[in-house]
Amino acid sequence: MSKNKVDKKIDFAKILDNVRVFAPATVANMICGFDILGFAVDKPGDEVKMYRVDEPGVRIRSIEGDDGRLPLDADKNTVSACVKLLLVDLGIDKEIGVEIDLIKHMPIGSGLGSSSASTVAGLFAINALLGNPLTKEELMPYCVEGERLACGHGHADNVAPALMGGITLIRGYDPLDVIKLPVPEDLYAGIVFPQVDVPTRDARQLIKEKVLLKDAVVQWGNIAGLISGLYQSDYALISRSMHDVLIEPTRAILIPEFYEMKRIALEEGALSFGISGSGPSVVAITKGQAIAERITEKIQQHLTKNEIDSFKYVSSVNVEGPKVLL
Amino acid sequence: MSKNKVDKKIDFAKILDNVRVFAPATVANMICGFDILGFAVDKPGDEVKMYRVDEPGVRIRSIEGDDGRLPLDADKNTVSACVKLLLVDLGIDKEIGVEIDLIKHMPIGSGLGSSSASTVAGLFAINALLGNPLTKEELMPYCVEGERLACGHGHADNVAPALMGGITLIRGYDPLDVIKLPVPEDLYAGIVFPQVDVPTRDARQLIKEKVLLKDAVVQWGNIAGLISGLYQSDYALISRSMHDVLIEPTRAILIPEFYEMKRIALEEGALSFGISGSGPSVVAITKGQAIAERITEKIQQHLTKNEIDSFKYVSSVNVEGPKVLL
Repeated sequence: MSKNKVDKKIDFAKILDNVRVFAPATVANMICGFDILGFAVDKPGDEVKMYRVDEPGVRIRSIEGDDGRLPLDADKNTVSACVKLLLVDLGIDKEIGVEIDLIKHMPIGSGLGSSSASTVAGLFAINALLGNPLTKEELMPYCVEGERLACGHGHADNVAPALMGGITLIRGYDPLDVIKLPVPEDLYAGIVFPQVDVPTRDARQLIKEKVLLKDAVVQWGNIAGLISGLYQSDYALISRSMHDVLIEPTRAILIPEFYEMKRIALEEGALSFGISGSGPSVVAITKGQAIAERITEKIQQHLTKNEIDSFKYVSSVNVEGPKVLL
Repeated sequence: MSKNKVDKKIDFAKILDNVRVFAPATVANMICGFDILGFAVDKPGDEVKMYRVDEPGVRIRSIEGDDGRLPLDADKNTVSACVKLLLVDLGIDKEIGVEIDLIKHMPIGSGLGSSSASTVAGLFAINALLGNPLTKEELMPYCVEGERLACGHGHADNVAPALMGGITLIRGYDPLDVIKLPVPEDLYAGIVFPQVDVPTRDARQLIKEKVLLKDAVVQWGNIAGLISGLYQSDYALISRSMHDVLIEPTRAILIPEFYEMKRIALEEGALSFGISGSGPSVVAITKGQAIAERITEKIQQHLTKNEIDSFKYVSSVNVEGPKVLL
């Protein structure tokens, strides 16, 4: 990654003093599309405040909302490391100094693309500060590098929707090929994060290396059906297609009350229900906001009864991606 | 299948004396969509002439173009067996008599859905003869049953496009869920059938029961990309997506000169190249007719040089499916 020279003219006179950026949480896999699909939501999301300072280099000034779990050391923190990488590739790391406040509005290890949201917010912020020399497509490799630093895998199914907004398809990685998919207007997500720990690495390790071809055929029939349903805004087809026969059976084991939450969601009219990313957050996909509100309410009640604390979020698909806040 | 009662009123006064039907050959899998995708072509295809006779029952009068390989016994012949099944379910098998001429315009065991084309032609013919009491959707289960009788598997990736026309997706089998996909206007198929024997059963048995999850992810990323490309008429995306990393490496072994044919096709500008169904027919997907003509010509020359006889066909995607011929 680093040592790539990015040939962009930076107008030093136009660099901003500071910028404040929001980047959205994301639901990777979109239930049936393991490692290829994902979508962004309006809330939660992370925030980066970035300040230009005289002393060259990238430094973390403060982190809020991480319970002290993220490193303040700029070389170890993914956000600052990615920002620095971009400055190096632009050839201006010896000339520009920035300091970062990172405000996490969502829990770490929630399965909602927490690290992706922070990385994307940081990279979007430095790009905005510099006068947007890079397109989103050009920022993407730095976001993927951030995922590699944070999770040990250069997956793009969280960073792609976090950066591009909407629903994204990672067609392939060699080279990275991100396709924006259409977003049916009434598609909502009701997300519940049960406060239990499921580290991404462990969740991945549970998954078997080999799968039955006949199960894979079921899975890619559903993926193809979902893509088709999105293009046609066909909610019934979307609902018929959003089943995960391969990954959910394994990962659901790590999530308390998963099948009871699923029963509640489907009974209340969800188009589909499943795990967000590697969990433990779960997501109900609905047509319209009201059903998503009702489902998250009922699921939270159920978890409370079982003495499990939780957060809930209801959101349409965020089609914008990261944005500069005023 | 049989013993289902199909509740349709047949107007005996309006039954036709005879009908002649064409049903198209099909390219199953569409290179990357094993067992779920397929499309119909304008040529080749099979023809059924059906005559109403006084004596109840279904009989085969003649078969042309099969080199004597298909049974004339009406109980053993797939076409007549499916027609009979439909008459039984309609409750009129004791009242109606039909005789069938089957004219095969394409080789058996070619990987072009030969049995599907015949079955679909037969079922479309009896439906037309009876005044079209069934919709295409209602005819579909009888077509699938025909595949089960002919191949031992009730796959629908040939019968679905043969009956519905265009490009079809089998989203799932339980229940059968067939989605028609959009057909980009300039999409052409250049098909070459090298005259070597690759029975479907053997071709299936070669395929491994288990696959690597990481390969399956590559495959379903490509499938999702292809579906997206079809909806957007994005030929570049279609081309990037149409790769089969799972099935082709195994099946290609059975097809002489496969990789040399592939090299020729891609060199001449094919969007993609691969195996049609279980082979040995191969197909070049192209933008426009001229490229497909050139590719099939060059591939046939190459095969001739290697003393392999072949047939070639160039066709746009057949969006109509079966039709009554005048």
